[in-house]
Amino acid sequence: MSHIPISNSNPPKQTDGNGKANIANILEDKLDPKVSIDMEAPEFKDFAKTMVDFIAEYLENIRERRVLPEVKPGYLKPLIPDAAPEKPEKWQDVMQDIERVIMPGVTHWHSPKFHAYFPTANSYPAIVADMLSGAIACIGFTWIASPACTELEVVMMDWLGKMLELPAEFLACSGGKGGGVIQGTASESTLVALLGAKAKKVKEVKELHPEWDEHTILGKLVGYCSDQAHSSVERAGLLGGVKLRSVQSENHRMRGAALEKAIEQDLAEGLIPFYAVVTLGTTNSCAFDFLDECGPVGNKHNVWVHVDAAYAGSAFICPEYRHLMKGIESADSFNFNPHKWMLVNFDCSAMWLKDPSWVVNAFNVDPLYLKHDMQGSAPDYRHWQIPLGRRFRALKLWFVLRLYGVENLQAHIRRHCNFAKQFGDLCLADSRFELAAEINMGLVCFRLKGSNERNEALLKRINGRGHIHLVPAKIKDVYFLRMAICSRFTQSEDMEYSWKEVSAAADEMEQEQ
Amino acid sequence: MSHIPISNSNPPKQTDGNGKANIANILEDKLDPKVSIDMEAPEFKDFAKTMVDFIAEYLENIRERRVLPEVKPGYLKPLIPDAAPEKPEKWQDVMQDIERVIMPGVTHWHSPKFHAYFPTANSYPAIVADMLSGAIACIGFTWIASPACTELEVVMMDWLGKMLELPAEFLACSGGKGGGVIQGTASESTLVALLGAKAKKVKEVKELHPEWDEHTILGKLVGYCSDQAHSSVERAGLLGGVKLRSVQSENHRMRGAALEKAIEQDLAEGLIPFYAVVTLGTTNSCAFDFLDECGPVGNKHNVWVHVDAAYAGSAFICPEYRHLMKGIESADSFNFNPHKWMLVNFDCSAMWLKDPSWVVNAFNVDPLYLKHDMQGSAPDYRHWQIPLGRRFRALKLWFVLRLYGVENLQAHIRRHCNFAKQFGDLCLADSRFELAAEINMGLVCFRLKGSNERNEALLKRINGRGHIHLVPAKIKDVYFLRMAICSRFTQSEDMEYSWKEVSAAADEMEQEQ
Repeated sequence: MSHIPISNSNPPKQTDGNGKANIANILEDKLDPKVSIDMEAPEFKDFAKTMVDFIAEYLENIRERRVLPEVKPGYLKPLIPDAAPEKPEKWQDVMQDIERVIMPGVTHWHSPKFHAYFPTANSYPAIVADMLSGAIACIGFTWIASPACTELEVVMMDWLGKMLELPAEFLACSGGKGGGVIQGTASESTLVALLGAKAKKVKEVKELHPEWDEHTILGKLVGYCSDQAHSSVERAGLLGGVKLRSVQSENHRMRGAALEKAIEQDLAEGLIPFYAVVTLGTTNSCAFDFLDECGPVGNKHNVWVHVDAAYAGSAFICPEYRHLMKGIESADSFNFNPHKWMLVNFDCSAMWLKDPSWVVNAFNVDPLYLKHDMQGSAPDYRHWQIPLGRRFRALKLWFVLRLYGVENLQAHIRRHCNFAKQFGDLCLADSRFELAAEINMGLVCFRLKGSNERNEALLKRINGRGHIHLVPAKIKDVYFLRMAICSRFTQSEDMEYSWKEVSAAADEMEQEQ
Repeated sequence: MSHIPISNSNPPKQTDGNGKANIANILEDKLDPKVSIDMEAPEFKDFAKTMVDFIAEYLENIRERRVLPEVKPGYLKPLIPDAAPEKPEKWQDVMQDIERVIMPGVTHWHSPKFHAYFPTANSYPAIVADMLSGAIACIGFTWIASPACTELEVVMMDWLGKMLELPAEFLACSGGKGGGVIQGTASESTLVALLGAKAKKVKEVKELHPEWDEHTILGKLVGYCSDQAHSSVERAGLLGGVKLRSVQSENHRMRGAALEKAIEQDLAEGLIPFYAVVTLGTTNSCAFDFLDECGPVGNKHNVWVHVDAAYAGSAFICPEYRHLMKGIESADSFNFNPHKWMLVNFDCSAMWLKDPSWVVNAFNVDPLYLKHDMQGSAPDYRHWQIPLGRRFRALKLWFVLRLYGVENLQAHIRRHCNFAKQFGDLCLADSRFELAAEINMGLVCFRLKGSNERNEALLKRINGRGHIHLVPAKIKDVYFLRMAICSRFTQSEDMEYSWKEVSAAADEMEQEQ
């Protein structure tokens, strides 16, 4: 990077309202267009390769770091200046600041000692793919804006759909209406499906009741999800401005009969059921709604069925778990996050729609500057999502699928499931503990026998020790701890370590009593 | 990466509904947890460093590539297998496929010959920052989920706000309610502001008219934008389910009087004005609405004023352009995209709110698994945005601001503005051409004198030659060509080259007549 001050880089003196004059001055100013103001390629190579070494160092030794930081809110501000520098700094100084400024405040999601929430993906092939995406840095809002960006996404979503054995209607290669798209997050997918369902139902009702205005219709729309559904489903209802009704689950799973009862009650009250979210792998306990019951109920009542398998969906690449998506043919849209459990770095939320036209046409605005000659012959993904702009995200799916291969991705899933079982066994071998739900996938829901307060105290103590990190959940007033297997670095020994941390915290509590 | 087949990686034979049995089999299966299924660190280093060299090679020589690809829809599918491989491939083979499969279909947004849309950012410091973001790969939905992710964002948004001399009320460091957040795109910012404004107005009206239900109120809400506003503003209205009225612009700019007239008409008809988008730098012609007129009108009528400066906002880091944001103190929210014109790779859309509570409280869902002890003492950005998940995006802002310095970022803006003027002069020196709008920032709107058809033919010919790429726009039935300066590699010679391409296309047309 040139450290030579740029001839006209000092702003002119008069900076008051009299801008035209200033602009004129600037334009008079003779800039040397040859002076580089950018970091030069050789310097970039040194910088980037140093970062590559740092990344490998960080990830390979992540187990040694304290998983949960000890900083307090506001820790960072005093560590850096309160304004951007006028002149360029050295990249070496920026590298130095990573350990000084950033790392003390990082919660290490990829540590084998991190068991909070659900995993978020991290893999070497995905990191390298994102480097390429950052270099090409195209915006793929239409086909012509970068055909490779759209076309690789279409094919990767077919590859992925085949890995899950999704019904052909969801795949672009089937030649039907269906197809897949990479959304940013599952919450966006839930919202996109809700908005598509809303547009579809409003159109149907307008034909039946031309005398009703749109807001009368919207006031009658009602959607459904399990009382165990993720908070983003409720939020999608708030964002979309429609009622969402939560259906009581049975053993944490939504059943068809309960959904149908809710729909029929609402119909009797003159409401208009339009949308149902079926969750495969809830956040609380990784419970699976009965898709094979709920899907047909939705179809029968002409309600859009959206399947949210954000975390657990990755497991469907293993044949032995596909029975949990039985009834998938009844879904209108299906979503899961390879960026959670399939080693593709965030953001990569895979969504398939049987008939994308409801989403595409619902918010179709088509200014001249975005039109192109090939419209219609390939998807213009801008119509499939909330934002207009989009990165070249299919690259990381392509790299991960090729550099792991289906076999190793399956092995990754199976290893995590086995580690969960290992931790569950350790838990059950200690008579002080009980499981709060059956172990599904890579999640163990456990608790100390007894009161919620004891378990709240236990979690506070575990996280306070800072060696492992868990978050809690509560179902029907029973508070428990969630132990999610998150890291690709996890080994059997890590399960023993994490269990020792939990039992040590429990020992401490007993000693204090 | 281990090419050793994993012991249990072959799925069991019986894959029918009888999944429980299968799971049991798998769990019996003794996995060797030591066998790595992942790419190993040394291999990652070779792969990533090879990619670094490729990236430098690609960008430094991007001028030599055909800016607009010649592929037809469907070009990519036949170039790769129709399913993911079972076994891992070699990274060298993936590298090989970048030129074979991807590059033929890439529109090179960072070529000096790319003049379509508006720029999207690309810089070496931002690419390296994103590498680090991909390695840490935390999800920053709450403060505790990774304090550094939230805290660096708060401080970077203050740095950036100070660079633009935003009023203190927008900055977190002022100690008031205000603050900034990094959104994915300007379209999301427009939607978030609209949803906040909607929630605020609905609450106000409910207090005045407790007898009105929510959908009655929503049916009366009306928002405003210039007839030159970006299509995403109209789309935000569709997504948010509210009326948006387009106000006729004067010389492409919205005036306060026209906005006030529209508001008063709607009030007279019993509608409820709630939201106005003021555009600083329209997509069609980079025109600037009169914020100093429209803002006070919005304030007077208690209408949320959102400023969309997606492209042009970056220029406000130069004092001589700040007169164009005169009236900014009247705005409720302000947004521009460092990922367009300030060398921070997509996605980095900077949004400031004077009172984020309207957005935060409007869709606040607070499940136990996302709660933490420090709630309230630092922003939980999940409440500020549409998605739940979010990457560590502040890193690229930090790297770019430090490694360029304010001076070089200002120089970047000024160089682009000068190049636009240079192209405009070349254009005006040819009597066949005229400017369709005054030259603002890095955009030149020009056309052949005469019919729209002639200009449509001209654009088709220019893009057909494939040496430069432009898109058109149309204002009040006048069709013209948009020539945006997009690349950080652009030099004065590139302007001469691009102009030669335009005039050569015009020559061809004349010869054929």
